[in-house]
Amino acid sequence: MAAPKEIELGTTLSLKFDSNGLITAVTVDADTHEVVMVAFMNKEALEKTMATGKATYWSRSRSKFWVKGEESGNTQQILGVYIDCDQDAVILKVKQKGPACHNGFHSCFYREVVKTPAGALELKTIAPQEMDPAAMYAKK
Amino acid sequence: MAAPKEIELGTTLSLKFDSNGLITAVTVDADTHEVVMVAFMNKEALEKTMATGKATYWSRSRSKFWVKGEESGNTQQILGVYIDCDQDAVILKVKQKGPACHNGFHSCFYREVVKTPAGALELKTIAPQEMDPAAMYAKK
Repeated sequence: MAAPKEIELGTTLSLKFDSNGLITAVTVDADTHEVVMVAFMNKEALEKTMATGKATYWSRSRSKFWVKGEESGNTQQILGVYIDCDQDAVILKVKQKGPACHNGFHSCFYREVVKTPAGALELKTIAPQEMDPAAMYAKK
Repeated sequence: MAAPKEIELGTTLSLKFDSNGLITAVTVDADTHEVVMVAFMNKEALEKTMATGKATYWSRSRSKFWVKGEESGNTQQILGVYIDCDQDAVILKVKQKGPACHNGFHSCFYREVVKTPAGALELKTIAPQEMDPAAMYAKK
């Protein structure tokens, strides 16, 4: 493992994994500048992403690699990958084809957290559903 | 806990915590549209953030609430909070004062992951250091 200064300011890739061996991946649509999703990667997922130019995550629920769009066709072509200071998170800058969210929204972040008059927190949908999810996964 | 459809498409806040009781927080500078950092929140951190309008995280390394900028002065005023489909991640849209990164860069993502001619992965700094970190924390 690299020295702290090299990890934070150097050129050596030295990923800091969580207890499941994963880092956080934040995916940004290069055209709209929107964060479209947050997912996870292990080292091999990052290597596959860099080698293929296709966003490849580690699915925690299915315990397997997940090439984004392999089922829906809504692929993410990699334009750049950026890592944070302590090397536990990456940004994927992508060319997003179709909706990124499996619910048919362009971004998974289609709801705002708002306060009710009584001070509780609730959600308010702020973006249009672009595609019928049933149609997204049926078209294959 | 809310039903799956309500979690994904409804108005009920029903956070999905990881094994540490945390969700991922992705912070975006509203002026530059940049992702400036990725951190974590528990339920109380989200509630404090919504109540005070100041980005408040849960520090895993220090096991305490962390009001961004309380030491450096580089605060994050909340302009909006957005949640993803399965409610395990939020975006904080903020007015960022000064550098967000403790290393003095505007964003923590100041290095690109690139391939060497031999096919290995290394890091390349792509953004200027805006402030001397020693000065950031000495000014208090």
